Amino acid sequence: MAQLKVAALAGGVGGAKLADGLAQILPPGSLTVIVNTGDDFEHLGLRICPDVDTVCYTLAGIANPATGWGRADETWQAMETLGALGGPTWFRLGDRDLGVHLERTRRLRMGHPLSRITRDFCRSWGIQHTVIPMSDDFVPTWVYTNEGELGFQEYFVHRQCHPQVTGFRFEGIENARPAPGVVEALRAANLVILCPSNPWVSIGPILAVPGIRQAIEEPRKAVVAVSPIIGGQAIKGPAAKMYRELGIEPTALAVARHYGSLLSGFVIDTVDASQSGEIQAAGVQTLSTAAVMKTRADRARLAGEVVEFGRRLAVQG
Amino acid sequence: MAQLKVAALAGGVGGAKLADGLAQILPPGSLTVIVNTGDDFEHLGLRICPDVDTVCYTLAGIANPATGWGRADETWQAMETLGALGGPTWFRLGDRDLGVHLERTRRLRMGHPLSRITRDFCRSWGIQHTVIPMSDDFVPTWVYTNEGELGFQEYFVHRQCHPQVTGFRFEGIENARPAPGVVEALRAANLVILCPSNPWVSIGPILAVPGIRQAIEEPRKAVVAVSPIIGGQAIKGPAAKMYRELGIEPTALAVARHYGSLLSGFVIDTVDASQSGEIQAAGVQTLSTAAVMKTRADRARLAGEVVEFGRRLAVQG
Repeated sequence: MAQLKVAALAGGVGGAKLADGLAQILPPGSLTVIVNTGDDFEHLGLRICPDVDTVCYTLAGIANPATGWGRADETWQAMETLGALGGPTWFRLGDRDLGVHLERTRRLRMGHPLSRITRDFCRSWGIQHTVIPMSDDFVPTWVYTNEGELGFQEYFVHRQCHPQVTGFRFEGIENARPAPGVVEALRAANLVILCPSNPWVSIGPILAVPGIRQAIEEPRKAVVAVSPIIGGQAIKGPAAKMYRELGIEPTALAVARHYGSLLSGFVIDTVDASQSGEIQAAGVQTLSTAAVMKTRADRARLAGEVVEFGRRLAVQG
Repeated sequence: MAQLKVAALAGGVGGAKLADGLAQILPPGSLTVIVNTGDDFEHLGLRICPDVDTVCYTLAGIANPATGWGRADETWQAMETLGALGGPTWFRLGDRDLGVHLERTRRLRMGHPLSRITRDFCRSWGIQHTVIPMSDDFVPTWVYTNEGELGFQEYFVHRQCHPQVTGFRFEGIENARPAPGVVEALRAANLVILCPSNPWVSIGPILAVPGIRQAIEEPRKAVVAVSPIIGGQAIKGPAAKMYRELGIEPTALAVARHYGSLLSGFVIDTVDASQSGEIQAAGVQTLSTAAVMKTRADRARLAGEVVEFGRRLAVQG
């Protein structure tokens, strides 16, 4: 096999952790992280890209390890001031974080595409691998619930995932184009990794951008997903709750079925090892390992195992 | 004379100081501060109202006493972050200050007029007197200079008043309306005070809003200006430089002539006492006193003298 080229699809926290593991073990130039922007939204006049920021902050080593979102050593003066004036504080924006949103919004208004802005920010933060938002087009995710249609952050942060989900809509996705470099990175990759992010609202929007799924499927390559469901639970976020509300038992197997024929390999936690047989019966190789990433070292270790697994699959063709 | 009703016209630092002095000595309900908004501008997608904020922060006791602008106990995380990403930092926005601009901009986008927002903010900050922006219409000041026409904050902050001034333009002022309460407060006042703010770019725009000058002149009342020029210098800001560049020697007398027939009284510093005769010859009474406000007590003392002077003029009719 030629030099390994990895493209990873990622959403927020779980995706960012595995992306960080991959960044730790792969040489610069061999990893492209393609990030969901379906959770982007406009708030307080600012364009906020939570998944892109979580991935970038994590790769830059400036993420808040306690929350999983936002920045380390953050202060909250602006938000406290705004709150004292009666403004909305349900979406917590730290002062440093605000600086990022202000500058991103300024550049977007100047006409810079999000992908270029993200590239520039990554350079400022010393990120040596490539991070690309899935699209420069604004394709906000809407969540259908028993309380009506909610914007994703309204559902996710403001309503804390309480409403019962009945479906999703990625607004404008049919006309969205992959950001420059996305299709190229996917076509050039010999291993595509679907990070342990929410299949519905993190990986789903990426795969829904016209052209991205095809670039994963052709030319043929190893495609490995890491299950975000471990022991019937999501490590973080509403993935398991969503599966249940959509009438599907939340299991690693359910995630493997979700991705279906796209996958050549699937990584599950050892607690779910009993599901291996059924996944393999569908023609998907499995790797069963410790899939919970608690420490930075866990990320690198899991990333190493995923890459090794993918490399074997790639060689098998 | 009936209960004293004072309306004060104010710009930034000097105006805010005298307004604070007036607020210290006058009972709530008897003082309305009408603030210049000609220096308002849009920056980083935010509506920023430097003079309104300086007046409000000062009256609320949360102004930064060292700089004269911005807030006390301020932090700069957002601006540092934005700067590290290559964004513009020439207009220094502290984190708490940003919270104000974010919430004001949010409300403006919802359609709230600036005067209502300012009233709400004053209430949050415990300000017991009335503060009204001169107009709810956006009437940005442009400065004609030897380097072309510059937005006011571009001239004032970014270029630090270096370009040579040839004139001013208050964009859209001919169609601006006084904010609700402005004309009422001026008509009801028996004393109008022009604070020691820049006559060209702080008091000038207020007087240029159609209807404001008339409401000062009718019904007839005492109108007292406090000279911002002391010993040929401005305590703060470019007023003296502007006079020189416009071919006028910067003196208290020049300021008195600037306001002309609007004035019934003029307050000058003792260092300028020799100009009293010439000012009085134009039919304007003078009060010569220590007009530099270094401490909070200075503000109250000067305000007391100005009010007493104005009260005498009002009684004389």
